[in-house]
Amino acid sequence: MAPVKNGRLLFNEIPTGYPEPGKTTVYDTSSTIDLENEPLNGRILVKTLVLSVDPYLRGKMRKQETKSYNVPFFVNEPLYNFGIGKVVRSENPTFKPGDHVYGILDFSEYSIPKDTSQLRVIVRPEPTLPFSVYLGAAGMPGQTSYYGWKEYAKAKAGQTVFVSAAAGPVGNMIVQLAKQDGLKVIASAGSDEKVKFCKEIGADVAFNYKTTKTHDVLAKEGPIDIYWDNVGGPTLEAAIEHGALHARIIICGFISQYNGEEAYGIKTMRNIMTQRMSINGVLVFDHHARYQEEFYQVIPKKLASGEFRYSEDVTRGLENGGEAILEVQKGLNTAKKVIVVADS
Amino acid sequence: MAPVKNGRLLFNEIPTGYPEPGKTTVYDTSSTIDLENEPLNGRILVKTLVLSVDPYLRGKMRKQETKSYNVPFFVNEPLYNFGIGKVVRSENPTFKPGDHVYGILDFSEYSIPKDTSQLRVIVRPEPTLPFSVYLGAAGMPGQTSYYGWKEYAKAKAGQTVFVSAAAGPVGNMIVQLAKQDGLKVIASAGSDEKVKFCKEIGADVAFNYKTTKTHDVLAKEGPIDIYWDNVGGPTLEAAIEHGALHARIIICGFISQYNGEEAYGIKTMRNIMTQRMSINGVLVFDHHARYQEEFYQVIPKKLASGEFRYSEDVTRGLENGGEAILEVQKGLNTAKKVIVVADS
Repeated sequence: MAPVKNGRLLFNEIPTGYPEPGKTTVYDTSSTIDLENEPLNGRILVKTLVLSVDPYLRGKMRKQETKSYNVPFFVNEPLYNFGIGKVVRSENPTFKPGDHVYGILDFSEYSIPKDTSQLRVIVRPEPTLPFSVYLGAAGMPGQTSYYGWKEYAKAKAGQTVFVSAAAGPVGNMIVQLAKQDGLKVIASAGSDEKVKFCKEIGADVAFNYKTTKTHDVLAKEGPIDIYWDNVGGPTLEAAIEHGALHARIIICGFISQYNGEEAYGIKTMRNIMTQRMSINGVLVFDHHARYQEEFYQVIPKKLASGEFRYSEDVTRGLENGGEAILEVQKGLNTAKKVIVVADS
Repeated sequence: MAPVKNGRLLFNEIPTGYPEPGKTTVYDTSSTIDLENEPLNGRILVKTLVLSVDPYLRGKMRKQETKSYNVPFFVNEPLYNFGIGKVVRSENPTFKPGDHVYGILDFSEYSIPKDTSQLRVIVRPEPTLPFSVYLGAAGMPGQTSYYGWKEYAKAKAGQTVFVSAAAGPVGNMIVQLAKQDGLKVIASAGSDEKVKFCKEIGADVAFNYKTTKTHDVLAKEGPIDIYWDNVGGPTLEAAIEHGALHARIIICGFISQYNGEEAYGIKTMRNIMTQRMSINGVLVFDHHARYQEEFYQVIPKKLASGEFRYSEDVTRGLENGGEAILEVQKGLNTAKKVIVVADS
């Protein structure tokens, strides 16, 4: 069979503000791949089905010398992130053709992952659950929530939790975990549609932070025993101000400052002392060893049965990936953003 | 015996900035007490020997309606704080005349404490240890350090700790606990004399933050695994910036903002997430149940033997108490500040 086109979304240029499609990221069709004859050298050939688009990707669009918790993208190489693919060919006994795999995949139609140890064969507990869910509620974002909640929230029934970006895949899992644990949930989101979704999944109080002041809501509905922070900035400042005695603050995201915004100065830190709060930063990779297997046993079943809900915002076609990435940075996505690269 | 004068230091007026002697606090000699006949109603009559002056007292000089972790002082009543007194008369079998007691005492020459349950009879392990030490290294400040270090520092030999206000009674105990645990200690203080003391007690790096930039020292000597914060503000901001992966930050004091200063905005909070640090606020009262008896078994002996050092800055006479309080707020004291009210 002749080589076929292998479309790729390349990292083209380090952005200073928002990542612009066609400038920061470029869709490239110049590459081809011979699906039958491309040498594998013990590895596997994967057809990409769905790719995840997450806020943290912006942090990888930086200079190589700037240190962070992850490595930066390389210019002129494909972006990569969590994805679901189908094994086309395999020289690795762990994987057989037709298997669905979850893990880090290139933003390309086909790829031969260098490190197959990070890939996991996905067997769905219920065939009704789409594979894409393994990128959201049953994937990295859901794991982030589950691990962080278990490790740091010290949740007690009757207490109050505040969640920002609560309609997103991390936030909405926190809303649902908190309701399951019997807490009162205050949720903020950036559109009326998202606020509606927060209420549907059980938030007791939900508001659009663009039209209602976070400070006012927390003054009325707080103090808060737990704050799950996906945004940082003034929202974090307000949450600290309204933290109860021994409140737990979990910093999971800081999207208010991912796109070149000037760092916001948090003026309420003295409250951490007077109320003896704790703050913890959470990153999913730190906690896989402790919670990953438990997560896969518990969460996909809840999602398949409908006990837990999820929501997706689908972009079709890798050529539209740059727009999808920008939407997530601007909060214009309506739910967990995925790019469907191929249907099967 | 005729009634004697009972000098008192009264809280006179809520300050907006620093607490001014003669305005915020007033020494009053209009009260008398009959030492032999004053009715005790089951309580004890205490002669005040030494009173502690601590930074946190500023937080009690506030309006009654402003909530915090402690209750405010009442205007026209004596200030009060940890002190050492001698029992003159007792109608409580726990205490006998001549006993030395430690606990909350009024800033008055004599008093009849309402709540004797918070008083503790002090029996010194070595008679060479002055009673005043039970207000500093062997008292509330030392306990604060000991409890917070045990609870939150997760100290490991070879790691690096940064301590601000390191010459003070809380800070210097942290320096010594950290050296005992095998850490590299970076210490900051506000005068060359204090810096010298930090080096004498074992700090590997000590600097005067008024003449050397904290940021520069931490950039050179960090990253830091633990930051013990007594000051807040830009120092806390710099410590977060130079925190290592999984760094622990313990907020114990915020003296940079006790005296009406505008709250400083901390711009480095995103690092808490990327480096997955923890922050905890510490208050001594939360941890007595777990660590107090251990503390009294361990620390006074180390102080009496000279294994741990302490340092005092003595003000003589309750009439000079207002000045002593102001000095501590301004950092003009050279060591743990105590007011000697009577020698015996």
